[in-house]
Amino acid sequence: MERTYIKDLKEKVGQEVTISGWVDVRRDHGKLIFIDLRDVSGKIQTVILPNQTEAKKTASELRSEWVVKMTGQVNKRPEKMVKADDPNGAIEFEVKGIEVLSAAKELPFELSAGINIDTYLDNLPLTLRNEKHTAVFRIQTVIVQAFREFFSAKNFIEFQAPKLIGDDAEGGANSFNIEYFGHTAHLAQSPQLYKQIMVGVFERVFAIGNVYRAEKHSTTRHLNEYTSMDIEMGFIKDHEDIMNIENEFMVHLSKVLKEKCASDFKLLDGKIPEVPAKMPRMSLREAQKLITKETGKDCTQEPDLEPEHERWLCDYAQNKLGSEFIFITNFPTAKRPFYTYRDEKDPIYTKGFDLLFRGVEITTGAQRIHKYDDLVASMKEKKLDPEKFSYYLQAFKYGIPPHGGFGLGLERLTAKMLGIENVKEATLFPRDINRIDNRLSK
Amino acid sequence: MERTYIKDLKEKVGQEVTISGWVDVRRDHGKLIFIDLRDVSGKIQTVILPNQTEAKKTASELRSEWVVKMTGQVNKRPEKMVKADDPNGAIEFEVKGIEVLSAAKELPFELSAGINIDTYLDNLPLTLRNEKHTAVFRIQTVIVQAFREFFSAKNFIEFQAPKLIGDDAEGGANSFNIEYFGHTAHLAQSPQLYKQIMVGVFERVFAIGNVYRAEKHSTTRHLNEYTSMDIEMGFIKDHEDIMNIENEFMVHLSKVLKEKCASDFKLLDGKIPEVPAKMPRMSLREAQKLITKETGKDCTQEPDLEPEHERWLCDYAQNKLGSEFIFITNFPTAKRPFYTYRDEKDPIYTKGFDLLFRGVEITTGAQRIHKYDDLVASMKEKKLDPEKFSYYLQAFKYGIPPHGGFGLGLERLTAKMLGIENVKEATLFPRDINRIDNRLSK
Repeated sequence: MERTYIKDLKEKVGQEVTISGWVDVRRDHGKLIFIDLRDVSGKIQTVILPNQTEAKKTASELRSEWVVKMTGQVNKRPEKMVKADDPNGAIEFEVKGIEVLSAAKELPFELSAGINIDTYLDNLPLTLRNEKHTAVFRIQTVIVQAFREFFSAKNFIEFQAPKLIGDDAEGGANSFNIEYFGHTAHLAQSPQLYKQIMVGVFERVFAIGNVYRAEKHSTTRHLNEYTSMDIEMGFIKDHEDIMNIENEFMVHLSKVLKEKCASDFKLLDGKIPEVPAKMPRMSLREAQKLITKETGKDCTQEPDLEPEHERWLCDYAQNKLGSEFIFITNFPTAKRPFYTYRDEKDPIYTKGFDLLFRGVEITTGAQRIHKYDDLVASMKEKKLDPEKFSYYLQAFKYGIPPHGGFGLGLERLTAKMLGIENVKEATLFPRDINRIDNRLSK
Repeated sequence: MERTYIKDLKEKVGQEVTISGWVDVRRDHGKLIFIDLRDVSGKIQTVILPNQTEAKKTASELRSEWVVKMTGQVNKRPEKMVKADDPNGAIEFEVKGIEVLSAAKELPFELSAGINIDTYLDNLPLTLRNEKHTAVFRIQTVIVQAFREFFSAKNFIEFQAPKLIGDDAEGGANSFNIEYFGHTAHLAQSPQLYKQIMVGVFERVFAIGNVYRAEKHSTTRHLNEYTSMDIEMGFIKDHEDIMNIENEFMVHLSKVLKEKCASDFKLLDGKIPEVPAKMPRMSLREAQKLITKETGKDCTQEPDLEPEHERWLCDYAQNKLGSEFIFITNFPTAKRPFYTYRDEKDPIYTKGFDLLFRGVEITTGAQRIHKYDDLVASMKEKKLDPEKFSYYLQAFKYGIPPHGGFGLGLERLTAKMLGIENVKEATLFPRDINRIDNRLSK
């Protein structure tokens, strides 16, 4: 018999169907055995009646996480037994037969138990099955889909950016080394240079993939491998065009999450942000003046925002400007990468921006330098050797339009959306200095 | 003025519009200057009339790959000047003004020139702009989209598989080493173990991303970084279910390519395959008997298919069975990875399969072992240490349904679809033993 998803059972009242899934909980009441069965679509209470001798024998052996196939009938529950807050609270599944597809060993702890982060991570292949963790990653998949749909509809073309990078253009303390046939290669820290090359080919591109930072920290914020959603867009006027399209994407994302993930957000106690059609924008200098004026602590000489300033600005944006998002623009040239476009009006500042959300930066973006000579000059000013960038520089030697883009970290965005404190809980298989799946030996 | 894409000009006859793009060719006829302008959507012949003094002065400086913005009027061409095979062959753009957005240096060769593969790869940021190469990667993007759409519609959930892998479960000659905080990590050779773990979470999953092989060869077939499109599917009957869904995907892909990529296939002289609703299937033993009978060369004792046998079987399938695709099933246990399910009827053979297309294997797939004890026994038989797989094994300890999946190499599929001999020409930024973007020094 064709398998029915558990979420569809309520449309099959009175019918005999087959369901498959994992035993979530078994409650043995002697005469009656109740089994909550879970599949990817939901949960259902099943009951084995005393007259079902065969099924009862099998049911008495079942424990949590055994995988079974059940045939039986969908029944309405009596009115007074209906559970209003359960999607399947008005029905029950009366079991006629059980087939064990896969047995499970005894669990080291209840799946619903509160466990610490290390236990969670040590046991990920099991703990990911907890309905709350499943919900996090279902939402994450929807975020990625929304990103793709939005930018594809705007004529952006997706490409697969390489992760294995040569020794020429990358390097430095934050880069992982790879032994590459007698050479040293690196893991990509971003798809930046390839995105810019691809503007020469497709004008508008995006890439979604892993990027790497060899950070020697194990904190609630650090990941050594994470997912970056990156766009680059040609024929722009300036960085305002990039902020505009990111703003529009966030409006779209909020709409999609409300449509597709409302119940998962509810389960996780997360709040889908309201996104203004025009998020507030403020230059770093304006922001620093404001902070200094309001807090009495002078930060106008600092070259960048400190974490406490990011939090302050987010509070300010929410309370005074009615937005959970705020763009901070015009960071100093000295603090931004060589390819960042300088503000013609005040060239010690760039046309670069950060997007802040719920206390942290979630995006770094900018207009980029598109003229070959300017780019070479900027490299030299940053003490970089243009010869090492000769491959990348070809794109600019042979004509690239004004362009810009941004990168958005998927796991951090997911965590902030859901109010998750530790970004590792919003990362499917997180790697840090102490762990690649298993804890690394000392 | 809002920019108009070049493909949309034919709907603007008689109107004044702005277009932007790259100078493809300039032809200076003295009184008249013709410039073919190219953007991501197409090409248009523009003309600068003698009375446009300003524009003419700018136009006389332009060379190939300069990036410009032009205002002007869309005119119909006289009947006898219409080029029937050009999408914009019935119109011409009369230039009123030109703004240079970005200059270009003189090209090292004509973009349309025939060049060898090394010159092509050395100059990728430029050569990718050739319309034929652009077409290859536009098709590749559509293949990825079609894969995602098809499997998402079948309730498969996409996840981001890690590429940075610990020292426990991977390793061996084909694996790249990464220096990881005093440990040795590896680049993933496939998302296999993570896909199987995720079957325990979402039942049906897919992942699209880079995978790595440390192959010490530089041939037309080898890549050290490529893109794998991978699925894994729970609650199957056996490997037939996996072949069925892959067959169905190929039918879908062929339909999508006909809808979206017909002109790119024509440009590249590629042939979109006709995909039968049921591709022929043959066990390895049957295939070997057939080859032996038909060619007179005995191959029935060989444990695997040789490249010449793959070619022979593809010819046979096409000529005798009317299919460019053929599944070969039941490879020997000895030649397949430890997680491959054994055929109950003949356990020295597996429920594993290859899909052959146009002379080569494009997919390896299988039902997988889902019972913990069987999996541990299989590891031991292959002289693997189950202790090193303890993380992965948790998934099986705590109940995994019968499942299977396959992996499909994006670049090889693209190459075979288009009749491209060297897979590097179907890879955006190919890495091999001699090259990461630039050639590696000896």
